[in-house]
Amino acid sequence: MTKDNLPAPGAPDIEIARAATMRPILDLAKDRLGVPPEALIPYGHHKAKVSLDHISSLKDKKSGKLVLMTAVTPTPAGEGKTTTSVGLTDGLNKIGQNAMVCLREPSLGPCFGMKGGAAGGGRAQVIPMEDINLHFNGDFHAITSAHSLLAALVDNHIHWGNEQNIDPRRVNWRRVVDMNDRALRNIVVGLGGPAHGVPRESGFDITVASEIMAIFCLATDLKDLQRRLGDIIIARRYDKTPVTARDIGADGAMAVLLKDALQPNLVQTIEHNPAFIHGGPFANIAHGCNSVMATQTALKLADIVVTEAGFGADLGAEKFLDIKCRQSGLRPDVVVLVCTVRALKMQGGIAKSDLGTPDAEAVERGSVNLIRHIENLKKYGVTPVVAINHFVKDSDDEIGVVQRICAEQGVTPAIAKHWAKGGEGAIELAKAVVEQLEKPSPDVATIYPDDIPLKKKIETIAGEVYRAERVEFHAGAARSLKEFEDLGYGNLPVCIAKTQYSFSTDAKLVGAPTGHTLEVREARLSAGAGFIVAICGDIMVMPGLPRKPAALEIGLDETGQVVGLA
Amino acid sequence: MTKDNLPAPGAPDIEIARAATMRPILDLAKDRLGVPPEALIPYGHHKAKVSLDHISSLKDKKSGKLVLMTAVTPTPAGEGKTTTSVGLTDGLNKIGQNAMVCLREPSLGPCFGMKGGAAGGGRAQVIPMEDINLHFNGDFHAITSAHSLLAALVDNHIHWGNEQNIDPRRVNWRRVVDMNDRALRNIVVGLGGPAHGVPRESGFDITVASEIMAIFCLATDLKDLQRRLGDIIIARRYDKTPVTARDIGADGAMAVLLKDALQPNLVQTIEHNPAFIHGGPFANIAHGCNSVMATQTALKLADIVVTEAGFGADLGAEKFLDIKCRQSGLRPDVVVLVCTVRALKMQGGIAKSDLGTPDAEAVERGSVNLIRHIENLKKYGVTPVVAINHFVKDSDDEIGVVQRICAEQGVTPAIAKHWAKGGEGAIELAKAVVEQLEKPSPDVATIYPDDIPLKKKIETIAGEVYRAERVEFHAGAARSLKEFEDLGYGNLPVCIAKTQYSFSTDAKLVGAPTGHTLEVREARLSAGAGFIVAICGDIMVMPGLPRKPAALEIGLDETGQVVGLA
Repeated sequence: MTKDNLPAPGAPDIEIARAATMRPILDLAKDRLGVPPEALIPYGHHKAKVSLDHISSLKDKKSGKLVLMTAVTPTPAGEGKTTTSVGLTDGLNKIGQNAMVCLREPSLGPCFGMKGGAAGGGRAQVIPMEDINLHFNGDFHAITSAHSLLAALVDNHIHWGNEQNIDPRRVNWRRVVDMNDRALRNIVVGLGGPAHGVPRESGFDITVASEIMAIFCLATDLKDLQRRLGDIIIARRYDKTPVTARDIGADGAMAVLLKDALQPNLVQTIEHNPAFIHGGPFANIAHGCNSVMATQTALKLADIVVTEAGFGADLGAEKFLDIKCRQSGLRPDVVVLVCTVRALKMQGGIAKSDLGTPDAEAVERGSVNLIRHIENLKKYGVTPVVAINHFVKDSDDEIGVVQRICAEQGVTPAIAKHWAKGGEGAIELAKAVVEQLEKPSPDVATIYPDDIPLKKKIETIAGEVYRAERVEFHAGAARSLKEFEDLGYGNLPVCIAKTQYSFSTDAKLVGAPTGHTLEVREARLSAGAGFIVAICGDIMVMPGLPRKPAALEIGLDETGQVVGLA
Repeated sequence: MTKDNLPAPGAPDIEIARAATMRPILDLAKDRLGVPPEALIPYGHHKAKVSLDHISSLKDKKSGKLVLMTAVTPTPAGEGKTTTSVGLTDGLNKIGQNAMVCLREPSLGPCFGMKGGAAGGGRAQVIPMEDINLHFNGDFHAITSAHSLLAALVDNHIHWGNEQNIDPRRVNWRRVVDMNDRALRNIVVGLGGPAHGVPRESGFDITVASEIMAIFCLATDLKDLQRRLGDIIIARRYDKTPVTARDIGADGAMAVLLKDALQPNLVQTIEHNPAFIHGGPFANIAHGCNSVMATQTALKLADIVVTEAGFGADLGAEKFLDIKCRQSGLRPDVVVLVCTVRALKMQGGIAKSDLGTPDAEAVERGSVNLIRHIENLKKYGVTPVVAINHFVKDSDDEIGVVQRICAEQGVTPAIAKHWAKGGEGAIELAKAVVEQLEKPSPDVATIYPDDIPLKKKIETIAGEVYRAERVEFHAGAARSLKEFEDLGYGNLPVCIAKTQYSFSTDAKLVGAPTGHTLEVREARLSAGAGFIVAICGDIMVMPGLPRKPAALEIGLDETGQVVGLA
């Protein structure tokens, strides 16, 4: 531990990350996880993948405890879910637990847009930060390649005789690139005459929106991966029956492209605790969690595993529990619900620019959001620990409000100062989590069973989690849901794509809205991932770059070091 | 050496490659090249990149000798240039020399088309073969990302106010993907209304055709890389002046995406000799050689470095000498010209299906092709060693013809049986190369100076190398060449894009045609790579998949091993 040599927490994340010493990853894997060097595939000296063979060999080992990190409804102020996941892991290790963290991989494209990096912040970061934010170990490139291969095979199949009778007007398999590129959203391909394929409308999504990303993160092993890849529906025939990737013989080659990527990536926190960073599907049209492979492997290697789900608990935890847990058999032993005073003030109607002024009343007003998330989680059978992610300017009065409300709700609040202090600052939270872990594990349940109609599943989530008054299905959506049931997919869970900024579909309705309507505009079938997507609102699957993209500031300094990243 | 345990040379290359033992790459680097583990970035246990810092530290070390591997005009029978490069390297080490090989990285896309892998063959291969043929160390993905970023920034610039006044009709920067995907050759982007960019015609090339690939392979260090990236011309303004990547601020972020990739990849031959495999630009619209970084670094680490150039000597060696050597200061000490009896028979008019019948007369007829390549190389100041890459069915008579012709031309022939016997089979060739190396180094010259008009440069290559009777410039090409000179690019070398199957532009004119015309249909400026491309014929920059793509046979077996790859 060389924390004293680190820049103050107010310094840019990249400076703190770069100043941190790193342990050789092979040493860390051996000492901390008992993974021998020959079971690792190193990528440089500070990143490694754990081999699939080694993972198989762990099958009969006892699993550790799983901590799910979720949050109140996101605001532009930032709630710090990743940062808190890292901080809690460091805090748990500080109090003598053997803990590791599982996170999602950041997407390359948005790094060059507005977003900057995604590897925690302040004194709670995973490193090497630049590598994690750039190509990392090539996983997303492998996913892009597998997606591109399938796309090329689809058009090639149509070009050479179209044995499967694919209707070119009904190809649903688009293309992907890991870049924010709005000009590719809507394109026409196959122009130039008969030698260049069949013209049709199509477009590109960003790689994280690929169904292959969702598949990659839900697959339990290489065989399951290939089975799911084969199940992908790429198009309809002229008779409207679905055509799968397997029907055109694409599944084997796609699995070949993904086999190395499927091995979880091991890195470390600034405090030298182990971290898996693996996979990163969208949290709207997909389920928004790191890979099942990473979570399951981590549970075999550590006593406590902290993992995060995307967005707020209404989307992230719901999908974690109703999709990832349902498909994989994973169950959280504790759920941590992150909130910040700033977020609750925004939920109480305060604008971001006014967050500087202490306002305990606004916290009080906004806490309806926190309360509803707590209530929702209880419906799944879990009583969360609330982590109050502390910001330097939070007043004692404001913090007091949150603590009181937690007490009223019968949940334990813990103030977490990991951003400023690293693991040391997360000891209160770590202790609260351990205390909860010592109780009998909760009897976690999904919120709907497999065997009810798809519409009913959507209505259940809308009613129980979003507290919508009613659900309206557009005619096309209803027709699609009916068709999916007729095709035998009625037993799948549903993945709702809606704004993350409100329980409703109106991003401006903060707090805990009621009486709203959930409009289901479209339904899509992700047969490989194993869920139905219900689209409720405008969902952006290919972001654009802003007027002044971050890329313009990113570059190399005189010594060849990266500058301008996050 | 465990050669006895390897399958017979007739076995599929992948079986031989997989049966070969591999030395841990860190050990091999230390023992054989004196590169310490901390100067390497391992990618698994059998691949590593050499760090840029270490490369800088070698600056003042004495350089070894450079052997350029080139070939007679390619035929569908295959001449085995890569295989001979690997075999010669193994042979050199067998006779006590300290030699390493530098090769191009295979492109991912074609693996799934017809081509299969590209890592040598028989007992002369580089390994791990699957890794090299698939994602390798992510270099091509990094190049695709850098290319995609620039493309996104171009359209984004136009979308947000277009400060540079880019004429959307005159954007020449296309997009790339490392996949054979004919449907992307000609597309319309930016459809869907004002929020989705400006509609315009565009298309995708395969990654190896990207100017960034050529830049990557010609850059001498990270700064030179960034300078070249900035020099890329992406479009014209409404006033027709060129806009560069630097003008829209893209060069820094692109360099960031490429900085890790720029480090050469170290692997090994089946016989545990060191190999760099790094970069792989097209040999028609680009210069077709592995990276300058790899070649220069190898020369600091080994006494003899064998490297290859794409296609036959008229294209590959010409570009190696007139572009790569001109820009980098590299000079070959020996040139090896590979030929096969089979290739010469095809140059003598025999069809591929009739190659089984011994036919010394056809070899005699076809040897005009060999003779012309020898004459051409002499014009550069080098007298090649001719490697007769031996095939099992070659008759003694046929081999005798080639030997006699070499004697008549005053060059040394050497029979090479590395495909069947590994390094042992290449000892005759290795000895011939060493003998040549012991003579004073040749005074290698480019075939045209920098300071003559671009047209004159093209005419020089056409006359001296292709032996064309005349050169015809289409009006547009002539206009472009004039414009490039007016813009100050008249001092650049030219890179001729034409069929590799003939000295002429007619792929069917085998042997040593004369009296033909070189038609220059179009001229393009690769200002970052630093050359002018003269397009003479149909050049395919985005291959399509065949009716039965190799992808359909590629998959994983029960144990998770790759099957069907080459």
